[in-house]
Amino acid sequence: MSISEVKQSIDRCLKQYYQSRIDDASKIHSRYQYLWENIGVQLAAGGKRFRPYMLIMAYQTYATDPDPQPILPAAIAIELVHQAMLIHDDIIDRDTIRHGIQNISGSYRREYALFISEAGEREHSADSSALLAGDLLLSDAYRLLSQVKSDPQSVLTVTNILSDAVFSTVGGELLDIEQTFISDNSIAAQTIARHKTASYSFVAPLTIGAVLAGASSGELGLLRRYAARLGIGYQMRDDLLGVFGDESQTGKSVLSDIAEGKRTYLLEQFDKCASPSQKAEFYQLFHTLDSSVESTVRSKQLLEVSGARTSVEAEIDSLRSQAITLARQLRLDCDRQQVFYQLVDICLNRYS
Amino acid sequence: MSISEVKQSIDRCLKQYYQSRIDDASKIHSRYQYLWENIGVQLAAGGKRFRPYMLIMAYQTYATDPDPQPILPAAIAIELVHQAMLIHDDIIDRDTIRHGIQNISGSYRREYALFISEAGEREHSADSSALLAGDLLLSDAYRLLSQVKSDPQSVLTVTNILSDAVFSTVGGELLDIEQTFISDNSIAAQTIARHKTASYSFVAPLTIGAVLAGASSGELGLLRRYAARLGIGYQMRDDLLGVFGDESQTGKSVLSDIAEGKRTYLLEQFDKCASPSQKAEFYQLFHTLDSSVESTVRSKQLLEVSGARTSVEAEIDSLRSQAITLARQLRLDCDRQQVFYQLVDICLNRYS
Repeated sequence: MSISEVKQSIDRCLKQYYQSRIDDASKIHSRYQYLWENIGVQLAAGGKRFRPYMLIMAYQTYATDPDPQPILPAAIAIELVHQAMLIHDDIIDRDTIRHGIQNISGSYRREYALFISEAGEREHSADSSALLAGDLLLSDAYRLLSQVKSDPQSVLTVTNILSDAVFSTVGGELLDIEQTFISDNSIAAQTIARHKTASYSFVAPLTIGAVLAGASSGELGLLRRYAARLGIGYQMRDDLLGVFGDESQTGKSVLSDIAEGKRTYLLEQFDKCASPSQKAEFYQLFHTLDSSVESTVRSKQLLEVSGARTSVEAEIDSLRSQAITLARQLRLDCDRQQVFYQLVDICLNRYS
Repeated sequence: MSISEVKQSIDRCLKQYYQSRIDDASKIHSRYQYLWENIGVQLAAGGKRFRPYMLIMAYQTYATDPDPQPILPAAIAIELVHQAMLIHDDIIDRDTIRHGIQNISGSYRREYALFISEAGEREHSADSSALLAGDLLLSDAYRLLSQVKSDPQSVLTVTNILSDAVFSTVGGELLDIEQTFISDNSIAAQTIARHKTASYSFVAPLTIGAVLAGASSGELGLLRRYAARLGIGYQMRDDLLGVFGDESQTGKSVLSDIAEGKRTYLLEQFDKCASPSQKAEFYQLFHTLDSSVESTVRSKQLLEVSGARTSVEAEIDSLRSQAITLARQLRLDCDRQQVFYQLVDICLNRYS
């Protein structure tokens, strides 16, 4: 299945899923139905369904019958975990927009304006509804996973993989929060990327798909290492795009990561590569929070001339060749191997 | 197994569980280990393990072999869901104390004082850590449930029961939040009690235990109805204890529910039973937030003389006799039936 075919199929399944939940919720109370309608809007709003795609791709690589129907609940499950994490992440980051529309917190801020006049109280209540929405999706991810048509041992294994991924992701998320204010530099950007990004967005989808198709433990070990490199490289590319990317394509404003105090891998490299005077100038611009065009241009220049950008590109190159080497070791025919090579380029050479 | 035997056994399993998670987390980062140590403190701090007790009790009622060992992971799972809900509930209610000690939000407020000087920012970050802690326990509940030694169909069924319970509980929680500021009275206290309290604290433990022991669908239907009555009655007793109970035994200050704006079943009955002048006097005391001894005594008197307390007691009596009738229909010998009768008294006739 191509990415766009997977997206269509997942969008359809997701719609069935949330419509049945809206229906269930309506039997409890119209207010609960309203929360689920909001969740439905979020689920429908966006997302490339890239995690379900990888899960199905891995399944089809190893399964004797390529029909993904029996394992679609697992593909939905991984998407629900993703959406749950986004919803909780938005609460933590105090974001109210996602996929270009109001997220749950955002839409409930407007909804509760009818009832709560005090802004802080209203925001807290809106965030509370979003917190509950995230819990619901996280819980239902496991419900769906248990509905996969496979042998019981595989279902048990993939449940463990999913909960390992949540465990790892939450650890990465905690470190990502704390590194903005704990300045002992013991929290490396690579550690965060490995746990927050690679584990549930790459390792879990690929290994869950492969386990459900009956892949050998040798293949699973290779896939795990391949996926980790893809995920970490993906995050590094993201860091670069956040600074050097085309805003109209990334949807992120240039330097916003840095402005938020995130110690990205790019910044870590800058601290290693830059001369004392480059550092002094950069952090001077940074601390004055000067967002003029000139300052932004100069900050980017400093990240370039210091060699930080080149250093990140070199690391991505290294991860790319490691991933390719691992993919080459997979016991697959050329066509199937090709898909894993392509995935490397999709993740590491993208422009948005 | 007696309640205290179950508590010992569950405490031991919980300790094993969180110690292995502390160990896993230490491999990611010492800061993540620190979060898990905090979670461990919470899990160890308190709780009567009443949900695991009910789960094991139902299992032993129907199982041919009374050894609960194979299903202990399910008993831990239901406790983890409970603890996850408490942690998220405390964020929503802005509570920082639980079981007489600082909860996760509370302890992280102190921890983050080292790094974040602004109080609002510090509290938000502390709540974020607590949010993540709740996610971890909710996720791990399903991990543990999948480890139950039983036939695959039963594991699937209990996974559905657990996620039904989370779905229902979160619905109840949402209504409980919204009823404090949406004043259209369409959210009945019984609806909240059924969903927020009965479903995961009574229906889920009893039916999960019975399913894992292979109870028939007829028995499950009876248990579900029995458990719902127990849960709703339990909540009503809680409402009464919150007003008329002995503070030293309940640990709650008298009238605190009412002061928080919770429309308890007792208050609903007051609105039905009280004369216009009783209502005027009560809400006058209520709105002035006068917490003098005289006002508290007078508020309690009004809840008595209006007939509201009697009305709630009558409803609890009715639920008690319905529960007893349902328990009598269970296809059990006298000794086993006796346990279900006793449970009714434990839940509905308690003093703390």
